[in-house]
Amino acid sequence: MAKRFGIQTVVVVGSGNVAGHLARALLKTGLKILQVCSQDIHHARDLAGELNADAVNSCSKINREADFYMLAVPDAKIAVVAAEMPPVRGIVCHTSGITAMKVLEKFQHCGVFYPFQTFSKNREADISDVPFCIEASSPAVLDVLKLLAVKLSKSVFVMDMAQREKLHVAGVLVNNFTNFLYAEAEDFLKDNGLDVSMLLPLIMETAAKVRNMSPDEAQTGPARRGDLTTIEKHLEMFKDRAELKEIYRIFTKQILKKYHE
Amino acid sequence: MAKRFGIQTVVVVGSGNVAGHLARALLKTGLKILQVCSQDIHHARDLAGELNADAVNSCSKINREADFYMLAVPDAKIAVVAAEMPPVRGIVCHTSGITAMKVLEKFQHCGVFYPFQTFSKNREADISDVPFCIEASSPAVLDVLKLLAVKLSKSVFVMDMAQREKLHVAGVLVNNFTNFLYAEAEDFLKDNGLDVSMLLPLIMETAAKVRNMSPDEAQTGPARRGDLTTIEKHLEMFKDRAELKEIYRIFTKQILKKYHE
Repeated sequence: MAKRFGIQTVVVVGSGNVAGHLARALLKTGLKILQVCSQDIHHARDLAGELNADAVNSCSKINREADFYMLAVPDAKIAVVAAEMPPVRGIVCHTSGITAMKVLEKFQHCGVFYPFQTFSKNREADISDVPFCIEASSPAVLDVLKLLAVKLSKSVFVMDMAQREKLHVAGVLVNNFTNFLYAEAEDFLKDNGLDVSMLLPLIMETAAKVRNMSPDEAQTGPARRGDLTTIEKHLEMFKDRAELKEIYRIFTKQILKKYHE
Repeated sequence: MAKRFGIQTVVVVGSGNVAGHLARALLKTGLKILQVCSQDIHHARDLAGELNADAVNSCSKINREADFYMLAVPDAKIAVVAAEMPPVRGIVCHTSGITAMKVLEKFQHCGVFYPFQTFSKNREADISDVPFCIEASSPAVLDVLKLLAVKLSKSVFVMDMAQREKLHVAGVLVNNFTNFLYAEAEDFLKDNGLDVSMLLPLIMETAAKVRNMSPDEAQTGPARRGDLTTIEKHLEMFKDRAELKEIYRIFTKQILKKYHE
């Protein structure tokens, strides 16, 4: 059964950051990337060139004989792409944390292949570290996806839609909101004529710290120690910045509640 | 003038993380640590042993002939230590971001030597990366502190109390609040039976990303792209978690406002 699904050839739909990073990683494991499909043929060609693959700009031109179809397109486009694709016998997966496998149900073999990481154009990500969250339409397909995922990463998890959504929202907290705090801190320093590069070592160390200790143990600061005098001073510094003041109040209230009630 | 203040010998007051990390770094630059002073003689001895220094448990026993006195004690204790210390001719500095240099005014030569980083007991910090923020009671003392700081770090800034306080509060955002987001995300995964280690690569990459691009460019997520459907789903997932819901609402509102108004 597993042999029947053995993955050797891949079609990549999408040409963004996720498509690029995953396709390059798949190529490195020895797979052949047959095609890159993107509405924008220039984008398709750029990525296909790197992968020694063909470029196509329409789902109707997709090679029907591939073993694995990776739909790495924006969440809202997954259903559209699935509808446009020809029937294929290979395994069709999307890479989204918030989309049900069900949108791919027209395909006999389908699944989810969700990398829990943020990818950027000009940064090489270490794929071997990335947690891959997989789901499949059958145990046989699941086995094949597992085999594929462990070639890419040492961190592979089987999970359903409900769990994937929870992981995704946790990612919003530690990525989107954390990054927004970085942006707010940077703006505040800039507006006060201070060098924003001073933030970087602290940002890195704050992140690195939770590899060795739980964030609960790592928690420090005025709210953690119940230092109301410093808290008052800080709020005063934000008197002309309603947004920062609101963020400061909420966190301080919640940290005080957690550690001092 | 600079020669008169040339620093060769150091007394460290305090035995916590800041005291330990800075004292070890000072030792590595070739300085002699004469004493470690801590109310708790066992703590003083532990650190002094590492530094080949003497341990004392009272400010009255402090060596009066050192060139540099580093007061790395909790903010609330700096004034107390200063009051108890004998008059000395060396430079007396505290290491606090939120304490005025004024609390050391009884000393002829004083200053601030504030490392903008979080230090932990069991993690080696790369001091050469840490921004040192310095202030001094005179230009001559400032020159000496600059010379000392550049031996420790490639990142040295002269700033006054008002600027230091602003930097400190920016640190609260990118360290304390960010860490609280990590803790909340971890709790949420735990409560849902998911492996918290899945968060670590994303946490690290989110931090590392802002070395190459501004947090403004790095901002992603449902609020950034104005994806109200996903936002509604996320809020629904937090229906039994008032704290998380509050945090989610505030960030989402502010990110929507910043990018979509």
